[in-house]
Amino acid sequence: MTVPAYRRLSVEERRSQLLSTALNLFSGQAPEEVSLEDVAAAAGVSRPLVYRYFPGGKQQLYEAALRSAADELETCFNEPKVGSLTERLQRALGRYLLFIDEHDAGFSALLRGGSVVETSSTSAIVDEVRRQAAVQILSHLEVSDPGPLLSTAVRTWISSVEAASLIWLDGGRPMPREELRDWLIDQLMCTLVTTGSRDEQAAACIELAVDLEEPGGPLAQLAHRVLPVVTPAARLL
Amino acid sequence: MTVPAYRRLSVEERRSQLLSTALNLFSGQAPEEVSLEDVAAAAGVSRPLVYRYFPGGKQQLYEAALRSAADELETCFNEPKVGSLTERLQRALGRYLLFIDEHDAGFSALLRGGSVVETSSTSAIVDEVRRQAAVQILSHLEVSDPGPLLSTAVRTWISSVEAASLIWLDGGRPMPREELRDWLIDQLMCTLVTTGSRDEQAAACIELAVDLEEPGGPLAQLAHRVLPVVTPAARLL
Repeated sequence: MTVPAYRRLSVEERRSQLLSTALNLFSGQAPEEVSLEDVAAAAGVSRPLVYRYFPGGKQQLYEAALRSAADELETCFNEPKVGSLTERLQRALGRYLLFIDEHDAGFSALLRGGSVVETSSTSAIVDEVRRQAAVQILSHLEVSDPGPLLSTAVRTWISSVEAASLIWLDGGRPMPREELRDWLIDQLMCTLVTTGSRDEQAAACIELAVDLEEPGGPLAQLAHRVLPVVTPAARLL
Repeated sequence: MTVPAYRRLSVEERRSQLLSTALNLFSGQAPEEVSLEDVAAAAGVSRPLVYRYFPGGKQQLYEAALRSAADELETCFNEPKVGSLTERLQRALGRYLLFIDEHDAGFSALLRGGSVVETSSTSAIVDEVRRQAAVQILSHLEVSDPGPLLSTAVRTWISSVEAASLIWLDGGRPMPREELRDWLIDQLMCTLVTTGSRDEQAAACIELAVDLEEPGGPLAQLAHRVLPVVTPAARLL
């Protein structure tokens, strides 16, 4: 990460070096524990130089680092419409979970809130990431105008991903990342199924998911695993 | 809410009158828009009197009001182990959703974070409410020592309830409260089913839910509604 100060960087290079250094530090510990001196030292530059690039000091640097993290996250969600929905989800969620795995403390502090550097402007950045995630998912579901129930289902699942990620980090990563990823995919599928039982748009999403899926794929495996669990409910019907 | 100042209240009565007045104001608008003068005026007392009870000023009053809201919320979750799990959930979630319906703006500001009066101490109060909700749910599921997957499922569902509530308030309550409640119950059941397909503890929870359910109850209705949605998946098996 550290670039010796004597190397002459362009303005853009220097700015992005400071941002990635800051993001790295903010990721390793709570933002309130990171000082501008720490960032300057880790980047091998003087404190005044950091101020020249970020005259607003730590708050501005934090927001800029957060914005660059948000851009990275939004890149994680970009997934071409190729293959089954479950495969696309595996790839996109895999990238997301890798990102939060690598940025744990900073990511937690941010999403958990209550950080002293959190403001309505940092909240807006986080909300925009959530909004982009919902746009991506709905686009893969081929829905352009979601009704309240489908929209609630997708946005609620996105918050589940955040919550489960935080619980996973907090608990010292009690299961492999891939297991968390696959469990989260199960959750989205079952949310679409139960929502689809009340809402035609969501039912159409499940139809699309089934159409795109190969026999024996993740959706088939889920159905296989679920059958014995739901069998006792037959007596209620 | 307003009690004329000339009525002589006991210390406890006065304190609780100020708290409920404050909670009322904090609920109607973002906490940063409520001043100590507003609270004094609404309670029909002088500003110095409010300070006598809450020498820490607005921050202390806010935390105390939040704590009393947290106590009220925890009361919502208290549900005797009588009837089916879905009936118990209907009652407890019904009380919770009524509470957030009545306290919307303050509740949103709090859970959304980014409020200027939010601190690690207010975050701890909110986290404690979440922890209590998880304890209650696991107790109804007759689980005393949840493994990582079941624990993640229950805690993630609690965050889904919060997220869906905020989305519901933000969106101008696009569906009746009862519909949101029943959709959230579906979500918990389907989370337990899919988690149960990977985890024996969660599978046992579904067994218990089915055992306690009457034929034709909410679980049977869910199964009936879900069947046509999942039928197309048969071709994958």
